[in-house]
Amino acid sequence: MSFKVTILGSSGALPAYGRHPSAQLVEIQNRYFLVDCGEAVQMQLMKFQGNYHRIGHILISHLHGDHYLGLMGLLFTMHLQRRTNDLHIHSHRGLDEIITTQFKYSQSVPSFKIIFHTLKNDVREVIYEDDALTVETIPLVHKLRCSGFLFREKPKPRRIDKSVLPEGLLIQQLAGLKRGEDVCDEFGNVLYKNETLTLTPRKSRSYAYCSDTAYNEQMVEQIRGIDLLYHEATFANDEEQKAKETKHSTAAQAATIASLANVHQLLLGHFSARYKDPQPLLEEAIPLFSNTRLAIEGEEHTIPE
Amino acid sequence: MSFKVTILGSSGALPAYGRHPSAQLVEIQNRYFLVDCGEAVQMQLMKFQGNYHRIGHILISHLHGDHYLGLMGLLFTMHLQRRTNDLHIHSHRGLDEIITTQFKYSQSVPSFKIIFHTLKNDVREVIYEDDALTVETIPLVHKLRCSGFLFREKPKPRRIDKSVLPEGLLIQQLAGLKRGEDVCDEFGNVLYKNETLTLTPRKSRSYAYCSDTAYNEQMVEQIRGIDLLYHEATFANDEEQKAKETKHSTAAQAATIASLANVHQLLLGHFSARYKDPQPLLEEAIPLFSNTRLAIEGEEHTIPE
Repeated sequence: MSFKVTILGSSGALPAYGRHPSAQLVEIQNRYFLVDCGEAVQMQLMKFQGNYHRIGHILISHLHGDHYLGLMGLLFTMHLQRRTNDLHIHSHRGLDEIITTQFKYSQSVPSFKIIFHTLKNDVREVIYEDDALTVETIPLVHKLRCSGFLFREKPKPRRIDKSVLPEGLLIQQLAGLKRGEDVCDEFGNVLYKNETLTLTPRKSRSYAYCSDTAYNEQMVEQIRGIDLLYHEATFANDEEQKAKETKHSTAAQAATIASLANVHQLLLGHFSARYKDPQPLLEEAIPLFSNTRLAIEGEEHTIPE
Repeated sequence: MSFKVTILGSSGALPAYGRHPSAQLVEIQNRYFLVDCGEAVQMQLMKFQGNYHRIGHILISHLHGDHYLGLMGLLFTMHLQRRTNDLHIHSHRGLDEIITTQFKYSQSVPSFKIIFHTLKNDVREVIYEDDALTVETIPLVHKLRCSGFLFREKPKPRRIDKSVLPEGLLIQQLAGLKRGEDVCDEFGNVLYKNETLTLTPRKSRSYAYCSDTAYNEQMVEQIRGIDLLYHEATFANDEEQKAKETKHSTAAQAATIASLANVHQLLLGHFSARYKDPQPLLEEAIPLFSNTRLAIEGEEHTIPE
């Protein structure tokens, strides 16, 4: 089952050198989430063949323009293409007014239902849950109310080992095996111990999106041990003071968070327009956390099962 | 002196095949006007080296998203880059609310003064005038209040023919010659007839932007004889009924307007996403008006003096 992050934009506040502002498509087991909507996100989705008709939830970290200005164009396009399925938008307060004002002046009523969810500030909350995964917010430290998002698969069932499975088991017994139960007869006597017929479950994968944020160790506990962390890295070391003033992070700070949280892989993004090539940011991060990569538009990051 | 139209986007409502929505940079004698602001206009300005810091006036034809959604990103960028000179925005009512709502939720106060001007509906009006040119609105027929824009240089002074100019004329006499006056002595006797020392003025150039609009012969009188007409051509002939329903034009209808108005050149744009290649639209226009071209992103159309 899929668990894939597609980078649609990884520029900072200003688009530069062909880089687009923040946006990502997160696909987990055929659920599609759009995380931030920098300007031109609809063109980026078309370019990288992201199936925007299947997006059910749009998560906006905060209301700086480089994180949401592409939303309205996408909504108008969905409307012109006669989308009918509901769309959930999660954002800090204000975005509903921004959107409804624009629909009002275009004299259009969207062809689909938009359901706004206002994020709480400074607290973790589960904003999405189904049988396979949860999404919770990560409180970030920025100039505006700002939240990251943590995607986490729920614990998975044990896998039945078909090579040793006896014939004739009932559906209920197979379901019990997946839940970790033994196979018993009608009197409760164990016929097969669970571990003789099943394999360990596939691992539950996880991904955290943390942009924009100042260096913030408070997030470490929440993201401990996750598979993939996207953390903003607006500046290089020589701009650490600037990072502090603007409540952004350096690449080294992002790597420090990744190391403290013992994540598997770190993805750097939200590069300042001062860097034509973000490679030096990567080079400052790697000594602190070796499994680091740059977020490059169009690249897909798949977390294997 | 320059008179140049740079195409930044010529797609219709949906961006498609790499084409961006409507936007143009119009430069006349070092005045810079941005006409419509389709999504990603700031990236297009950067790509085609349009000097957006020098833009003094932004003209928005109407409040369908494909004509204004790039404005906010451009304004935020100007703000982040600490623009100080005033910016005039001309639009039908609503855009001021859309912009101020977004500045409010980003908790920023623009670094420069934004002066909103609300366009009148269904009447021509001069919205810009200085010593060299005027800009007036062209009432268009569309689903929303919608205006085109007519840029027209004012009549130019006669040019002094230096090859025959006698020595010793006063500055006031030279200025009089440019205004078409004869050179007289202190008693009012004509020393030199104007036409013996001057050449005809350079022509006053003109450009009209007409998008979006249904076929509308009422505009013909206003744009008669202009040098360059940009007219929307959303559809081909076989979609004439669709054009009528959606209050757009076919390429042939655009060519008919150009022919009736006897303009010098026609530029087609606002191509529907159904056309991967807009060449067939050009082929339907040319039999009706031969001097027709397609509006292609990045191309500059200069009207010579």
